Amino acid sequence: ELIEFCNALNPGRTAEFMEGLSNEEAWEVLQYAAPSRRSEIFGYFEEERQLAMLYKHDPSQVAELVEEIPADDRVDLLQELPSERVNQILPLLPLSDRRNIQRLRAYQEETAGGLMTTEVAKLGQKLTVREALDELGRQASELETIYYLYVVDEDNMLRGIVSTRQLVSSLNKPNRTLGEMMESDVVVALVTEDQESVAEKVERYNLLAIPVVDSGRRLLGIITHDDVIDVVREELTEDAHRIAAVAPLEDDFLRIGLYTLSWKRGLWLTILFFAALLTAFTLRQYEAELEAYAWLVWFIPLIISAGGNSGSQSATLVITAMTSGEVKFHDLPKVLVRELAVSFMLGSFLALIGFLVALFIAPSLEGALIIPITLLSVIICGCMCGALLPILFKRAGLDPALMSNPFVAGIVDILGIVIYINVARALLS
Amino acid sequence: ELIEFCNALNPGRTAEFMEGLSNEEAWEVLQYAAPSRRSEIFGYFEEERQLAMLYKHDPSQVAELVEEIPADDRVDLLQELPSERVNQILPLLPLSDRRNIQRLRAYQEETAGGLMTTEVAKLGQKLTVREALDELGRQASELETIYYLYVVDEDNMLRGIVSTRQLVSSLNKPNRTLGEMMESDVVVALVTEDQESVAEKVERYNLLAIPVVDSGRRLLGIITHDDVIDVVREELTEDAHRIAAVAPLEDDFLRIGLYTLSWKRGLWLTILFFAALLTAFTLRQYEAELEAYAWLVWFIPLIISAGGNSGSQSATLVITAMTSGEVKFHDLPKVLVRELAVSFMLGSFLALIGFLVALFIAPSLEGALIIPITLLSVIICGCMCGALLPILFKRAGLDPALMSNPFVAGIVDILGIVIYINVARALLS
Ligand SMILES: [Mg+2]
Ligand SMILES: [Mg+2]
Ligand SMILES: [Mg+2]
Ligand SMILES: [Mg+2]
Ligand SMILES: [Mg+2]
Ligand SMILES: [Mg+2]
Ligand SMILES: [Mg+2]
Ligand SMILES: [Mg+2]
Ligand SMILES: [Mg+2]
Ligand SMILES: [Mg+2]
Ligand SMILES: [Mg+2]
Ligand SMILES: [Mg+2]
Ligand SMILES: [Mg+2]
Repeated sequence: ELIEFCNALNPGRTAEFMEGLSNEEAWEVLQYAAPSRRSEIFGYFEEERQLAMLYKHDPSQVAELVEEIPADDRVDLLQELPSERVNQILPLLPLSDRRNIQRLRAYQEETAGGLMTTEVAKLGQKLTVREALDELGRQASELETIYYLYVVDEDNMLRGIVSTRQLVSSLNKPNRTLGEMMESDVVVALVTEDQESVAEKVERYNLLAIPVVDSGRRLLGIITHDDVIDVVREELTEDAHRIAAVAPLEDDFLRIGLYTLSWKRGLWLTILFFAALLTAFTLRQYEAELEAYAWLVWFIPLIISAGGNSGSQSATLVITAMTSGEVKFHDLPKVLVRELAVSFMLGSFLALIGFLVALFIAPSLEGALIIPITLLSVIICGCMCGALLPILFKRAGLDPALMSNPFVAGIVDILGIVIYINVARALLS
Repeated sequence: ELIEFCNALNPGRTAEFMEGLSNEEAWEVLQYAAPSRRSEIFGYFEEERQLAMLYKHDPSQVAELVEEIPADDRVDLLQELPSERVNQILPLLPLSDRRNIQRLRAYQEETAGGLMTTEVAKLGQKLTVREALDELGRQASELETIYYLYVVDEDNMLRGIVSTRQLVSSLNKPNRTLGEMMESDVVVALVTEDQESVAEKVERYNLLAIPVVDSGRRLLGIITHDDVIDVVREELTEDAHRIAAVAPLEDDFLRIGLYTLSWKRGLWLTILFFAALLTAFTLRQYEAELEAYAWLVWFIPLIISAGGNSGSQSATLVITAMTSGEVKFHDLPKVLVRELAVSFMLGSFLALIGFLVALFIAPSLEGALIIPITLLSVIICGCMCGALLPILFKRAGLDPALMSNPFVAGIVDILGIVIYINVARALLS
């Protein structure tokens, strides 16, 4: 019954059904699955459970499992295990797997090399359609994907690519060779390429997998679509964090150490705090005005939050449009003109509301007029800063998401106060 | 030469090389490509160019192209064209395509139905491996993907799924039937299902494509991995916008109408503005304190921005962890305890800096002490609000990203002022 449970259902579902079990129970049940099935089900467990299992159980059983895990996921998992444990498991693996692990371990985590898997269909260009299909059939259980065949020469140089779709469509011409059919203009990722740019290529060309090559165009591995989706999510989440002034987390939010988390947040928070100190010194400069017209103080948070919020909106819109490739540097004038128009509309509307409220609070009509004039100017400033700064950051070779919203808000806070008091001075003098 | 240019290169690259051409030139070049190639290259143009081409050129040439565009992309494009133009093109299409378009048009844009394509391999369960491969070969040019075969009965009910990988591995048993090989526990998307949940399934189970069924489990189409990546990007960008208090844009940032954009931003900005008005009324309550100790005013922006920034960090971290499925409601206590610890560390550090500055500005030691005590309390409050509110929003069935950062900051602004003045009262009285 357990054998059937493990082998009949979709492995992802089997793993879900096992969620209620303790790690020990789940491990027991897993032993009933066929070896390749076992690693598939294991692949759907949460990372914490995976690590606990690799850490705790009988090394020879663990090694048997590790042998079957796809090369890319295997390295990622072993890197999370304590090295004593890894040294216990490694000697129990076949030499080829051990070598494979050593080699993949050398690549940086957020590069093509760190993402790729090595179980790839490499074939010579002399093979015919029929031979290629037979060869694929034999290798299928070992391969990460059988849907792209990579044609390589004796030196392992990537010559071209043939899709299984092409093979299947050519079944009626079984003697055509791969060399005749292959597409030689292959989109590739360099092994040291950043994962963000790898994901962009896969997205742009709608690939199932992208081959990874070294600088001599030797085929090292492939990165498959499922891992690319994970990268897209990771990179966009990283951007969202940056936009909120959190340095990228290298671990899950619930698992990351509290000191590390404080550091990732505290760094920017401290920088922003020093920026905010400037507001205190700015206000101090205007001591006289603020004492003479005490009601001006009441509107300070309102004005700086309106500027900060509209600036954050602009910054976020521009940053996300830049990451998706929609906004480039040459769009700067267009972006600024559009932001100017939008901020004018938004600013006018909020200024109107602000004016109506100020009429009740300010002692004079001139006084009340300070509020709408300031609001309109601050909102326009906020939007222009928010739109301009990320584009300039990108131009300077920095991540535009570094131009975080709190940063924009911080700049607008100071600007807002200066504008406010100067408008007040002009109108009340 | 142009024929070779169009047909030899990877279609995505061909499209890129044509970026420098005017729409008219590009259209001319396109005519040299074989019909199926032509629609592939066309698929890589930017949407604006695609629409301009469909809008401008000879209807019969356009219809020839439209016939070849994948069913899902075709409907999306036609929905962007003015209806007079669509009515010009539709009658030139074969009846089956016309029907297909009518049918797909009926589905909501952000549902499985709005994403699916209909060119799917449907086969009966009695077919053998050999027959299935031959059939696939015949249909290959028509199909969106040939890598999953869907086994259906006479009523078009989805019975199971066989991957081309399984077929190729079974080439040595050519008489096995699909019915024997198929996996019947298929992960499906309901045609009305939201695209976010569809993408989650594809991500979770690492699928190349997901079948779309109606409530009677009849197979209507499939959604492929490339469109799922686009959905993931779209949904995460939407979240980033929501977090910055921008209602989801339905169009590209550079293409959306300025009134629409102002509305999407103005809605939240106005709500936040009314929230911020409360800060003005709160400060007015404390008129006496602020006049007696004018230097207190100088620290107001500093205090509320420290609270708002740390709260935004917490909110963003919790929201992104919730969208990726990492944080669930039952994690609430863990999240709050961790946030409490982190905010205590962050708060203490900033409080220390604040205290040192205040020593120079405040007239007395008791006065200077107001700043660190307030900062610590406000930062703790900010983090707790930021962490708690998105989880409660989700629990209430709302999008946690609606609990935007400006909203958290708005709440913290008011709380911050109240805490500040009360601490000041306690210490200065
Ligand atoms: Mg890796
Ligand atoms: Mg794409
Ligand atoms: Mg993988
Ligand atoms: Mg993976
Ligand atoms: Mg990155
Ligand atoms: Mg990035
Ligand atoms: Mg659609
Ligand atoms: Mg996945
Ligand atoms: Mg599609
Ligand atoms: Mg698409
Ligand atoms: Mg959505
Ligand atoms: Mg969402
Ligand atoms: Mg603020």
